[in-house]
Amino acid sequence: MPLADDVLRGDFLAISRGISLVENAAPEAREVLDALSSRVGGALRVGLTGPPGVGKSTTVDELTAAFVARGEKVAIVAVDPTSPFTGGALLGDRIRMAKMAEGGRVFMRSMATRGTPGGLARTTQDAADLLDASGRTIILIETVGVGQSEIEISRASDCVIVMLSPESGDGVQAMKSGLLEIADIIAINKADRGGADRLEHDLKTAFELGLRSRRDMPIVITEAIRGKGIPELVAAIDGLIAARRGSGAFQERRRENMEDRIKQIAEFLIQKNLWDANGAGRKVAAAAENVLSRRQSPYQGAQDLVREVLR
Amino acid sequence: MPLADDVLRGDFLAISRGISLVENAAPEAREVLDALSSRVGGALRVGLTGPPGVGKSTTVDELTAAFVARGEKVAIVAVDPTSPFTGGALLGDRIRMAKMAEGGRVFMRSMATRGTPGGLARTTQDAADLLDASGRTIILIETVGVGQSEIEISRASDCVIVMLSPESGDGVQAMKSGLLEIADIIAINKADRGGADRLEHDLKTAFELGLRSRRDMPIVITEAIRGKGIPELVAAIDGLIAARRGSGAFQERRRENMEDRIKQIAEFLIQKNLWDANGAGRKVAAAAENVLSRRQSPYQGAQDLVREVLR
Repeated sequence: MPLADDVLRGDFLAISRGISLVENAAPEAREVLDALSSRVGGALRVGLTGPPGVGKSTTVDELTAAFVARGEKVAIVAVDPTSPFTGGALLGDRIRMAKMAEGGRVFMRSMATRGTPGGLARTTQDAADLLDASGRTIILIETVGVGQSEIEISRASDCVIVMLSPESGDGVQAMKSGLLEIADIIAINKADRGGADRLEHDLKTAFELGLRSRRDMPIVITEAIRGKGIPELVAAIDGLIAARRGSGAFQERRRENMEDRIKQIAEFLIQKNLWDANGAGRKVAAAAENVLSRRQSPYQGAQDLVREVLR
Repeated sequence: MPLADDVLRGDFLAISRGISLVENAAPEAREVLDALSSRVGGALRVGLTGPPGVGKSTTVDELTAAFVARGEKVAIVAVDPTSPFTGGALLGDRIRMAKMAEGGRVFMRSMATRGTPGGLARTTQDAADLLDASGRTIILIETVGVGQSEIEISRASDCVIVMLSPESGDGVQAMKSGLLEIADIIAINKADRGGADRLEHDLKTAFELGLRSRRDMPIVITEAIRGKGIPELVAAIDGLIAARRGSGAFQERRRENMEDRIKQIAEFLIQKNLWDANGAGRKVAAAAENVLSRRQSPYQGAQDLVREVLR
């Protein structure tokens, strides 16, 4: 199919169109993804998350520059799980895109996935597949760390960098919120504000005491706005990936992620089948009426409905 | 069943135990909810949401005091979609609980629903059903307005108060984020900071220009920390509910909410059936292997899986 062919040639416009199809849950999205599936798997997918204001965009830009300098073909997918915008670039991204246009070496895309059928993880992974098939070698997936989004970025990535800053109790908040649980590497940014060493020490203590499997968690101190610590962060990513490829952990994580992903897609397909079917709306309305008139609990109503629609 | 009987008598400990069962997705939760279903429907469910720091807790406290003063039996359910804590009271709630213990007239519960199977809406609605059956007459559901949570609070409530403050661009942010779309009443809090009239004017203009169906949106200016505007907010709720009961819109919304809820529960039950079934894990693993070895796209793998498990 022509669009898939253009994606395979690495054409930025074709990739953009493909991602828009994915975002809009268009039927053609399936066709493109199916057509490309034998060419997916070569790119490294690096997630990057952290609280608002920690410096994610700056760090992504600096990482990108470092990767481009050594010949990688980088794509950036910025996922905003809280924004209702879809399909377009956000203001901040336009500025960054202009800055990085440099001969079209970097593909950059914002995805606003709130309300997308099937959720953030599904559309982000589909977009990453398109980019992967297009020949990009590193896909940076950036998302703000709120709510469920960090769990989903973890499922979409080969490794996750969690960014914290020494200010405003990020460390404690991160421990409480579960952000640390998905970290493969921690970057303490804004080292110039002071307190970075203290935060590093606190994190190390926490890992020693509580999170035993994380005892060897790489912690990198950065000052992204001045490019400081970026080579060390790149080295941490390279080292982690090399070690995991050697031990088989890399492929194991891809397998786990793919199992999760297939389950999510299966649930999405079933839901579509259920509620798009003929007469489904009438059956749901009847079940709701039963509950509202106190003849059944919502669970009994739903169970009867499931029996009927799956029959 | 004994627990259900104790809930019906309005016993706070029994209600608490019931909600914990719901949070933990325990099998007994179903039994309790089924046993109580014929006694659910009498309570008014009022959602209250807005950005962090807008004064939601204070407003809920003041509303509660006003409702208690006129003889209502109030329950507060504070939902934190970003917190991984489950089943326990958060620090802030402890302070508030102590303040409101006043003879056990108010039931207060925090629910941390991140990662709960089936999501925030399902567990919150189940908890509200328990409280409803226990004889509470008003259930205030408070949640921070981030991500998907406000859509879910709207589904769980008879009406939703969206709180904004004049500072920090809450208004613009609310318009952009879709928060206004779920509002039945708007409360502009922190009127003492200045700018409340301006925000009210901006909102009215926006409703006139863009959101036609919201032209008559009640907007109340409050200063909750001093109790100012609370009688007006109570009057706005009473007026809205009375009008909707008169027009049939109240029951219509309950019907829509219940249809959504039954669909959500049906999806939850199907997912449980799918993945808890014998051999499901092996089938998922085989599908993932097919995709990782580039024989199929994730969608093809998921579709085959669905066919097989639903057969």
